[in-house]
Amino acid sequence: MSTQLKGNAVVGQSGGPTAVINQSLVGVIEEVCEQDCINDLYGAIHGTRGILEERFTDLKKISRHDLEHIANTPAAALGSTRDKPDEQYCLRIFEVFRKNNVRYFFYIGGNDSANTAHIVNKLAQQAGYELKVIHVPKTIDNDLLVTDHCPGFGTAATFVSHAVIGDDFDNRSLGGIKVDIVMGRDAGFLAASSMLAHRREDDGPHLIYVPERPITMEQFVQDVSEVYNRYGRCLAVASEGIRDVDNVIWTKKIQQDLEADAHGNVQLSGTGALADFLTAKIKEKLPKIRMRADTFGYLQRSFPGLLSPVDAYEARYCGRMAVYYAAGPYTSGSVCMQRFGKGDRYRVETFITTLASVAAGAKPLPDEFINEAGNNINPNFYDYVSPLVPPLPDVGYIER
Amino acid sequence: MSTQLKGNAVVGQSGGPTAVINQSLVGVIEEVCEQDCINDLYGAIHGTRGILEERFTDLKKISRHDLEHIANTPAAALGSTRDKPDEQYCLRIFEVFRKNNVRYFFYIGGNDSANTAHIVNKLAQQAGYELKVIHVPKTIDNDLLVTDHCPGFGTAATFVSHAVIGDDFDNRSLGGIKVDIVMGRDAGFLAASSMLAHRREDDGPHLIYVPERPITMEQFVQDVSEVYNRYGRCLAVASEGIRDVDNVIWTKKIQQDLEADAHGNVQLSGTGALADFLTAKIKEKLPKIRMRADTFGYLQRSFPGLLSPVDAYEARYCGRMAVYYAAGPYTSGSVCMQRFGKGDRYRVETFITTLASVAAGAKPLPDEFINEAGNNINPNFYDYVSPLVPPLPDVGYIER
Repeated sequence: MSTQLKGNAVVGQSGGPTAVINQSLVGVIEEVCEQDCINDLYGAIHGTRGILEERFTDLKKISRHDLEHIANTPAAALGSTRDKPDEQYCLRIFEVFRKNNVRYFFYIGGNDSANTAHIVNKLAQQAGYELKVIHVPKTIDNDLLVTDHCPGFGTAATFVSHAVIGDDFDNRSLGGIKVDIVMGRDAGFLAASSMLAHRREDDGPHLIYVPERPITMEQFVQDVSEVYNRYGRCLAVASEGIRDVDNVIWTKKIQQDLEADAHGNVQLSGTGALADFLTAKIKEKLPKIRMRADTFGYLQRSFPGLLSPVDAYEARYCGRMAVYYAAGPYTSGSVCMQRFGKGDRYRVETFITTLASVAAGAKPLPDEFINEAGNNINPNFYDYVSPLVPPLPDVGYIER
Repeated sequence: MSTQLKGNAVVGQSGGPTAVINQSLVGVIEEVCEQDCINDLYGAIHGTRGILEERFTDLKKISRHDLEHIANTPAAALGSTRDKPDEQYCLRIFEVFRKNNVRYFFYIGGNDSANTAHIVNKLAQQAGYELKVIHVPKTIDNDLLVTDHCPGFGTAATFVSHAVIGDDFDNRSLGGIKVDIVMGRDAGFLAASSMLAHRREDDGPHLIYVPERPITMEQFVQDVSEVYNRYGRCLAVASEGIRDVDNVIWTKKIQQDLEADAHGNVQLSGTGALADFLTAKIKEKLPKIRMRADTFGYLQRSFPGLLSPVDAYEARYCGRMAVYYAAGPYTSGSVCMQRFGKGDRYRVETFITTLASVAAGAKPLPDEFINEAGNNINPNFYDYVSPLVPPLPDVGYIER
């Protein structure tokens, strides 16, 4: 047996947090305590930024009791960062690692984080410094390459499907047209998960728009009108990243319209601009109809009351396996999940892939899940998403 | 013993629904089945509008099994209405009642509904037609006069306090300033309930604004800056009904195209306009700070995943007691709750008050609950709200 790499470890959290990202962190901490090759475990405060500033906290001293509370707490307990490290930035990270005899780096995040991990790993290799870098997947957008799905997505999908069930009953009560904006950036997975709310023929959502299928405002308004004429009401779900047929994101177009208070970056979340724009467009054609819009916002990634147990388990599992792979005869890489079985027989196993393959880009919602008209989700998406979402509430209807 | 009034009954639901309004409906149905004086129980589809159009459904034929599912379903199962009946409208309601030998009318709603009940009751008296009209309280705004609190509020407060806990951890992760807009119309109860999320000294919400205390934009931005300077972040909660010092609602000031319903209520919800306005104001002073806003929207009154058991129980109880009062030696009126005991010893009893006293207006958040600066809620509000909200999730922090 070869000599095991001995030294310290750093763990960090990056990007938009999720409700289960701390499960992964606690999984890392738990497994590090099992592995003799790792001495100290430094938690980087605010991700890579904390590494540069050598802002670390000793994670091994946290009690088991406190760890369970932290695991159940939404959002990044270590703090997160939106920094996108370039080569120079990564070189400084690497120098901090070398100085502190850091031989293991666990980075919990999306594809930007995988890319950071990839660059740091390359720099270490070039310098002949032994370092294992393991990326732990995390994103409610569910858009990471290679892995079947991502920790964080199941809980966000649980929130969204519950929210849409409730909102659909609200819309039944008072009628009219309702538009709900769902997170997901360039990927439609989270918006698609709202299809779980549709259980009876007349249930909403009646329309679901995803970024993978560009849509004109004319078509959108036409679709909504048709549903309204059919049911006397309409609940439409749209991903924040929906785009026009020229492939420009609608939110970007709106912000250009509102040039007067333009702030530069395209901000998809934390604003009601897209929702208000869509309802205004509908109002132009159907001026007398009750029209409302909600942007589900940050609750989708942070709501603490309603976790997906499967998602929480898998997030913890991915964290543990990251350390397990690092301590074993594996090179640097990204933890992935593979799915076996359907329905009740659903289970996952992890495997490890190269950092480059996850850093390479984002995964769109596969075409097979989107209906031909591009305004709804096919029933086969149910098999994909339903194992990740706990049973939805039983509801009752009074026939009118 | 005097002869009991015999005949049919009508029940309807009105105004903005809640997540437990069907508990009250099912309470009415259950108790009607216990009372011999009521023959048929007609459910009015879409409230008073359904009465005018004689759109009724036979509620006695629904099975117990289905009733439990309906009770657990958010929003008005019979459909709701925003119609504000005048004398003429009420006269037509009364004619439908007379024609169908309706001797009992149960109306589940807020103070507008109490007013409708009041007018219909007066018309029946003037015509010498024996009719008992019982108003069943319902509103997430918690702004009904006489009653200690209102069914629907506890569940909405549960959603809001959970949402703010999650959002506060999200804000800790990435820093910056976050503004959350909470429902409540002219009353600050629901925004105030977000104070439950504040458990540790540095927890948000750091600021809570309610309609009862007018605020200038200068003061608002100043408050937010001070919190930001202190904690490096700020989570502020604002009621949708906050107003300027000239007592004009901020949303009214910023919205060009206001949609008002028949009651003269402006549309406060279903738009992100106020949230976006507030963040733009902060940005003028702190242009480089990360700034986000969410409008919690209709989820506050419809989210099905997280009910308050106390609220669900009380909503059912008020529905049952409405029928009990109607069948007993009571005149028309509105069901109210009185609170006894604190904390674990909390319990309620119902009593009945006049329709006029509830129809008379709306109850503001009492001044004793608002801090002197008008930008937060006093700790004594905890005793008022906490019995209505189930235990909040345990959370854990990593000290940075």
